[in-house]
Amino acid sequence: MFTVVPVTHQFDAMIQHKIDQKTKPQGSLGLLEVLVKQIAQIQFSCDPTATKLHINQPGLLVFAGDHGIAKYGVSIAPSEVTSQMVANFVHGGAAVNVFCRQIGFNLEVIDAGVLAPLGLDGITEHRLGNGTEAIHLAPAMSIEQVTQGFEAASEVVERHVLSGCNVIALGEMGIGNTSSAAAMMAVLLDIDVEQCVGRGTGIDDKTYALKKSLISQALILHRSSLTSPLHILACLGGFEIVQMTGAILAAAELKILVLIDGFISTAAALVAVRLHPAARDYLVFAHQSEEQGHKLMLAHLNAKPILSLGLRLGEGTGAALALPIVQAAINFYNDMASFEDAGVDNVV
Amino acid sequence: MFTVVPVTHQFDAMIQHKIDQKTKPQGSLGLLEVLVKQIAQIQFSCDPTATKLHINQPGLLVFAGDHGIAKYGVSIAPSEVTSQMVANFVHGGAAVNVFCRQIGFNLEVIDAGVLAPLGLDGITEHRLGNGTEAIHLAPAMSIEQVTQGFEAASEVVERHVLSGCNVIALGEMGIGNTSSAAAMMAVLLDIDVEQCVGRGTGIDDKTYALKKSLISQALILHRSSLTSPLHILACLGGFEIVQMTGAILAAAELKILVLIDGFISTAAALVAVRLHPAARDYLVFAHQSEEQGHKLMLAHLNAKPILSLGLRLGEGTGAALALPIVQAAINFYNDMASFEDAGVDNVV
Repeated sequence: MFTVVPVTHQFDAMIQHKIDQKTKPQGSLGLLEVLVKQIAQIQFSCDPTATKLHINQPGLLVFAGDHGIAKYGVSIAPSEVTSQMVANFVHGGAAVNVFCRQIGFNLEVIDAGVLAPLGLDGITEHRLGNGTEAIHLAPAMSIEQVTQGFEAASEVVERHVLSGCNVIALGEMGIGNTSSAAAMMAVLLDIDVEQCVGRGTGIDDKTYALKKSLISQALILHRSSLTSPLHILACLGGFEIVQMTGAILAAAELKILVLIDGFISTAAALVAVRLHPAARDYLVFAHQSEEQGHKLMLAHLNAKPILSLGLRLGEGTGAALALPIVQAAINFYNDMASFEDAGVDNVV
Repeated sequence: MFTVVPVTHQFDAMIQHKIDQKTKPQGSLGLLEVLVKQIAQIQFSCDPTATKLHINQPGLLVFAGDHGIAKYGVSIAPSEVTSQMVANFVHGGAAVNVFCRQIGFNLEVIDAGVLAPLGLDGITEHRLGNGTEAIHLAPAMSIEQVTQGFEAASEVVERHVLSGCNVIALGEMGIGNTSSAAAMMAVLLDIDVEQCVGRGTGIDDKTYALKKSLISQALILHRSSLTSPLHILACLGGFEIVQMTGAILAAAELKILVLIDGFISTAAALVAVRLHPAARDYLVFAHQSEEQGHKLMLAHLNAKPILSLGLRLGEGTGAALALPIVQAAINFYNDMASFEDAGVDNVV
């Protein structure tokens, strides 16, 4: 349902030349140079006549969903906390609210399917159900729900882009969702559960062992059904993960930059790229999370994240905090003097 | 000439309690939690009755100086480039200008002693000479020049603080200054030159070997004189490094936060902390530079830098880019809801 084309490489030599003429030793802005090349490729794909790169109306989408597996004791918190935190987002009290206000993100909170509707203003209700089925006992959802989730997410992204947005960041809330993401990762990377399962927000040894055991059970249960990325989402995903995957593909179709947050967002990115490999061109990885599987997924996606602050919170906090660095990359490209402009010898 | 007292630990339990009551799993904001504890200690040392932490009128001081060793071929660029870049700073075209404008730093450019006065408006002239002596042939400067540099830097910092500034960031420009910083590091950490000398802004194998050889020669020449941090500065330092050291100590005396940039700033921090160990309490390390000795100095100072973006430019660019993260740490502390405020179960 998505048409994703790669970014243009028509202007690569011009972009590199412009970077190399700035008054600094070549390569001395490190990751900012890598980042701005990608941003220029994306923005020249949208508008080959653009004279300046820019960020406009950045949107941070937080998708919330509940997970059937949560009631089997894989997390430190019960599913009810998902809804409590969604209410906190709506009232502006969570970490992601604070960071969005500071950095200038338009925050949208989407109920992708928490336990029950919250009935609060300020939530976009795109509910695919009252939480997923427990993945170690049944498929999380149907293929129809996956498709419905993609459509709902496209609608959100298109609305932002129509308002002028050209950067989408993704965040999530969902007690139990590291189990879902780890299960998807194990299948997509074809590696052992042990390498994919982390401590989430801080579980003890017993809970950790149980978490690995239930995920292994889920992988055995669905073994014969995991025949495509869509089936992996249906069997092992979550409502928020499905909608994040849809949001990534919708943004890539519309040729805008997507800021990926931590472990859960990266699992959504992994399945999005498996569905449409060209989507990778539009993704910037904001943050190296403390969740142990995250490094493996990032390596698989050939991604070097912008920040490494030891965050393990989700909500899109890492993606929000990375935007000033993205802006700095754009600003040096647009605004730094060249050697010729400044009368500086081109040797530094 | 400086009186530096440690930060107060009187409020540590209250600070930690406030952080732990925020609506997030304990510790899940990683480095931001570590950072805000230090900032709170600093700001409560200034004003024990403060109700909110804050950043006001942040100032970024770029100190420029030339180095006698530069004409012996240790750098890719001649000393003239220092003055060309200082002119570029004054005209607003360098990377540090772009980042200061974006992030809201008041930038001040100080000529600490480049080859010859530039005679441009917008430069603070605190010249200690026309570049230092070549450190492998003579002491870089006299002890009197070190003292004079400390006084000049104090004057700059005091002026900023009187205008309401409570965060000072440090940057530098000086062709040849990685040689000076590496030599100081070798003495202060008592380690081999090999571990301290890097590629600067990108020198080749031959230049690299020469650089190590001249630094070793300097260490042998001054061996019997390196009896105190002040003598290390006089024999091996640079005019900009001396003034950065003075600026760090002046800011610590005035109990304000200091953002340390890369390799050169960290060498200045190292000598400042050796002179007044309590100064360490006021220092936040903004950036892990690509210069190989930087990791060793950071480890010695027990510092975990905020960013690691592969920068190797200096000018204070890393310090400038770290400020939004410092602001985010302050904002979560001031503005996030507590579990009680938000009606969220205190289990996440």
